[in-house]
Amino acid sequence: MLWSGWGDPGRAAPLPEPVAGLLRDMLGVRPAERPPAALADVEVPGCRLGDGELTALAKIVGDSNVRADTETRVRHTRGKSTPDLLRIRAGETADAPDAVVLPGSHDEVLAVLRSCAERRIAVVPFGGGTSVVGGLAPSLDGTVGGRGDGAGAGAFIALDLRRMDAVVSVDETARTAVLQPGLRAPAAEARLGERGYTLGHFPQSFEWASIGGFAAARSSGQASAGYGRFDDMVVGLTAATPEGTFDLGRAPKSAAGPDLRQLVLGSEGAFGVITSVTVRIHPVPEAREYEGWRFASFGEGAAALRRLAQDGPLPAVLRLSDETETMVGLADPAAIGTPGRGAEEGAGQAGAAGCLAVLGFEGTARRVAERRAEAADVLRAAGGEPLGTGPGEKWEHGRFNAPYLRDALLDAGAFVETLETAAFWPDIPRLYDAVRSALIGALSGGGTPPLLMCHISHVYPSGASLYFTVVSAQGADPVAHWDTAKRAANDAIIDAGGTISHHHGVGTDHRDWYAREIGPLGAAVLRAVKERVDPAGILNPGVLIPLAAEE
Amino acid sequence: MLWSGWGDPGRAAPLPEPVAGLLRDMLGVRPAERPPAALADVEVPGCRLGDGELTALAKIVGDSNVRADTETRVRHTRGKSTPDLLRIRAGETADAPDAVVLPGSHDEVLAVLRSCAERRIAVVPFGGGTSVVGGLAPSLDGTVGGRGDGAGAGAFIALDLRRMDAVVSVDETARTAVLQPGLRAPAAEARLGERGYTLGHFPQSFEWASIGGFAAARSSGQASAGYGRFDDMVVGLTAATPEGTFDLGRAPKSAAGPDLRQLVLGSEGAFGVITSVTVRIHPVPEAREYEGWRFASFGEGAAALRRLAQDGPLPAVLRLSDETETMVGLADPAAIGTPGRGAEEGAGQAGAAGCLAVLGFEGTARRVAERRAEAADVLRAAGGEPLGTGPGEKWEHGRFNAPYLRDALLDAGAFVETLETAAFWPDIPRLYDAVRSALIGALSGGGTPPLLMCHISHVYPSGASLYFTVVSAQGADPVAHWDTAKRAANDAIIDAGGTISHHHGVGTDHRDWYAREIGPLGAAVLRAVKERVDPAGILNPGVLIPLAAEE
Repeated sequence: MLWSGWGDPGRAAPLPEPVAGLLRDMLGVRPAERPPAALADVEVPGCRLGDGELTALAKIVGDSNVRADTETRVRHTRGKSTPDLLRIRAGETADAPDAVVLPGSHDEVLAVLRSCAERRIAVVPFGGGTSVVGGLAPSLDGTVGGRGDGAGAGAFIALDLRRMDAVVSVDETARTAVLQPGLRAPAAEARLGERGYTLGHFPQSFEWASIGGFAAARSSGQASAGYGRFDDMVVGLTAATPEGTFDLGRAPKSAAGPDLRQLVLGSEGAFGVITSVTVRIHPVPEAREYEGWRFASFGEGAAALRRLAQDGPLPAVLRLSDETETMVGLADPAAIGTPGRGAEEGAGQAGAAGCLAVLGFEGTARRVAERRAEAADVLRAAGGEPLGTGPGEKWEHGRFNAPYLRDALLDAGAFVETLETAAFWPDIPRLYDAVRSALIGALSGGGTPPLLMCHISHVYPSGASLYFTVVSAQGADPVAHWDTAKRAANDAIIDAGGTISHHHGVGTDHRDWYAREIGPLGAAVLRAVKERVDPAGILNPGVLIPLAAEE
Repeated sequence: MLWSGWGDPGRAAPLPEPVAGLLRDMLGVRPAERPPAALADVEVPGCRLGDGELTALAKIVGDSNVRADTETRVRHTRGKSTPDLLRIRAGETADAPDAVVLPGSHDEVLAVLRSCAERRIAVVPFGGGTSVVGGLAPSLDGTVGGRGDGAGAGAFIALDLRRMDAVVSVDETARTAVLQPGLRAPAAEARLGERGYTLGHFPQSFEWASIGGFAAARSSGQASAGYGRFDDMVVGLTAATPEGTFDLGRAPKSAAGPDLRQLVLGSEGAFGVITSVTVRIHPVPEAREYEGWRFASFGEGAAALRRLAQDGPLPAVLRLSDETETMVGLADPAAIGTPGRGAEEGAGQAGAAGCLAVLGFEGTARRVAERRAEAADVLRAAGGEPLGTGPGEKWEHGRFNAPYLRDALLDAGAFVETLETAAFWPDIPRLYDAVRSALIGALSGGGTPPLLMCHISHVYPSGASLYFTVVSAQGADPVAHWDTAKRAANDAIIDAGGTISHHHGVGTDHRDWYAREIGPLGAAVLRAVKERVDPAGILNPGVLIPLAAEE
């Protein structure tokens, strides 16, 4: 993973000149004045942990699994939001962990948490390191657990789970697998694939994200319509806390009280460290067919998606770009600025009017054919125009490329970031307008009018997600400038009835709006749970849990 | 509702003589020595609430909505488990509420809870009154909230939600409806049906159960494979607690933290009173086709159901009776003792070897036909023999009759009760054997060898439910005798890896085994939540929440 960007450095590529030219002309993007820092030049603050504390941790996990060297600490600093990247590219490492600890088992995690609770050392679980909501940047004000009197107060470790990367077991009768949290998604797919199975979980972070992260942050993949969200896939889990172990899930569903699995899922490390999940698996589909459809407008396309979500047949992948995203054809940056090229390919993208929908059908060859035909009837009746498999295959081919493109855009001096929400269908138009207005107003007011795109990528019978992408010039202080715009967007989301996140999570970035979403009693309940499982307050402090009103 | 039994007294019917004869011959059932008490003869303990307390409540809900007359109190005493019925038939009313309060709105519920919290009066929410797990029998030891010093200590009210019975709104775009908790299921279906919609929720308690009860106890209906469990249907809810209001659900799914809806669902009144739910609705299906299949054994049939649950097509209703239940043909008591009659009808029931499966397909006529044909291929390949629509239609016709049959069996001197669990598929055979052994051992050891039947009625890709029905002689002390057997069955469920309830809930009856299921940390978290939302401990005390180890 590129320390200051995304993914495999070998896959980085500069923006094509036509795109860079378009950014200059349309958005006033100018090359950044300062090149990114070099890793060798980046320094970190002094380690706040003493030898005694590091030795205590090394006793649990082994000497080689407690690391405090500069490069390791830099590589565990914050996550992969655009502000995270801009700050790390500038060599800012104030949020670097004091050490990185690599446990090898549930019992080692338990022991590390107990040791850290005794010593008031904060613990940030680290899976793929791909959080885009500040989930890896704890709030350390010397008052972990409300008591700043411990030896390690103000210090924190990143608990890197990469050693816990096993496919523990595969149960072909239950169609489930037990997976450890540090397992990366590609390795999980590869190892399940050897036995003929897939998780069917393909978020944009797929190449780097981990199983534990998917569970802790309620990830949702691009094929969620077919395979479900990650929180739907989990039928059992174990988690370690300073106060003991959660071991939950004896049946797919139960009437035995509240579903406590759903209390740990989405807890983002604040309630404990997920040490295994039992997840549903599926036979690798015999057939996969992806296709494109064009709709006259986003509203017309959304109504068609709603038909499929409510009455079926539901494809595995179902997404719809708005007019701007369709026009820009973001998935193929080489096409930007060459109007007509997309249309010539029948791709319905650059140069083509309307909105592009992508449908992906997966399953047995017979069912794929049947469902595709049946869906076509529904979409035609809803005003859709079939574009053939070209746009679908193109989307599938480039589905994990956007984060690489972001690096190239940042290099070229552009600012690019995403945010997302979800709501019930009747609220979607209002939510779409409100977020657009907020972002355009805030960014234009700051002198960097944005290109703003949106798509629906997750549908349910009662509602859908909205995913926004912003591209603009960086301006003088892009981190502060984005912070203003993001706050305006968050306010708009909450005011328009949306959830503050459909699949990115809460982290530190969304915490205050999350508090508005769940109300004072919801927040109080989360604090009560937190105090019970983590009385010292060491678990990812500042993430997720709303502060009490009096604080 | 019959005060001492089930449902509409007009539908009560004595057991046919051949059935009564069979019970005598097979199980040694003898007519009960004492007839049930008459309602006019039943007395209740003196009301522990003073005039001041009753007046305070009347100020909130109105004079006519605070009731302390004997009949009202008797009709709110306990629920509808067989021990509940045996005790009420004997005139035992120790668990009668001191008064029954009927709030008319969320705000009235809030005010009642605050008033009761101040006065240490326990509150038992009452919907349809159909709990079979002791969910309406609080533990009152004068120490509500751990402090026995309040004026009302030791007293409790039943909070009957029948006045809150509105269909608040129907959203045809989101395909959702907002329903109040006191709405009974038949009224909900009737009023949604007028607009062309259905909930698709048909548990055996359908005729009497309420929307709030479905949500509070995580009900699962007979068509759960097609329409989902009730907890799957709920996309939003409000609940009142002594400490404020929960208002949860801004989108079908979210990554904004733990799913707090799933913390309130299944909380059985211990975390608050659900005052509205937003639930998914479905167009009334154009076609409904029910059919029967025969399998050589329960194991073979279960494997066939698993195929449908994992690879489809999944019918709306999917159930499988074991060999004994198939033979007895419980759904048609007139057939008991007339071997061959079922077989002559092609019903695959009485007199026929093997196990009967019932499949129900619902939807558009085209999809019903397609899915039925496709399912037939799967079931044939799995060893099934088609029995046509006769057994399916017979099952559908009698689907809500079992509780009426129970009354007749009790009248005839038999004991009949049910219990249920769920597990992952690989654990199902062991769980089935373990529960059978426990029940047969305990009941035979007590001198009343049972007839023991079982069915699978809810399937998931990774597992299924098991539902057991016991029929035996009552013996000298059926309540104590069943208590012993039930404890043995509960131990067997937990030891074999099952959940203590798939759809009946926890109540007081399952609480100690629920504690084993979720472990000490799970129990501690529930207590922490309880203490936060109900510091006085007035909400359904003794239900659900495991006691702390030191208590």
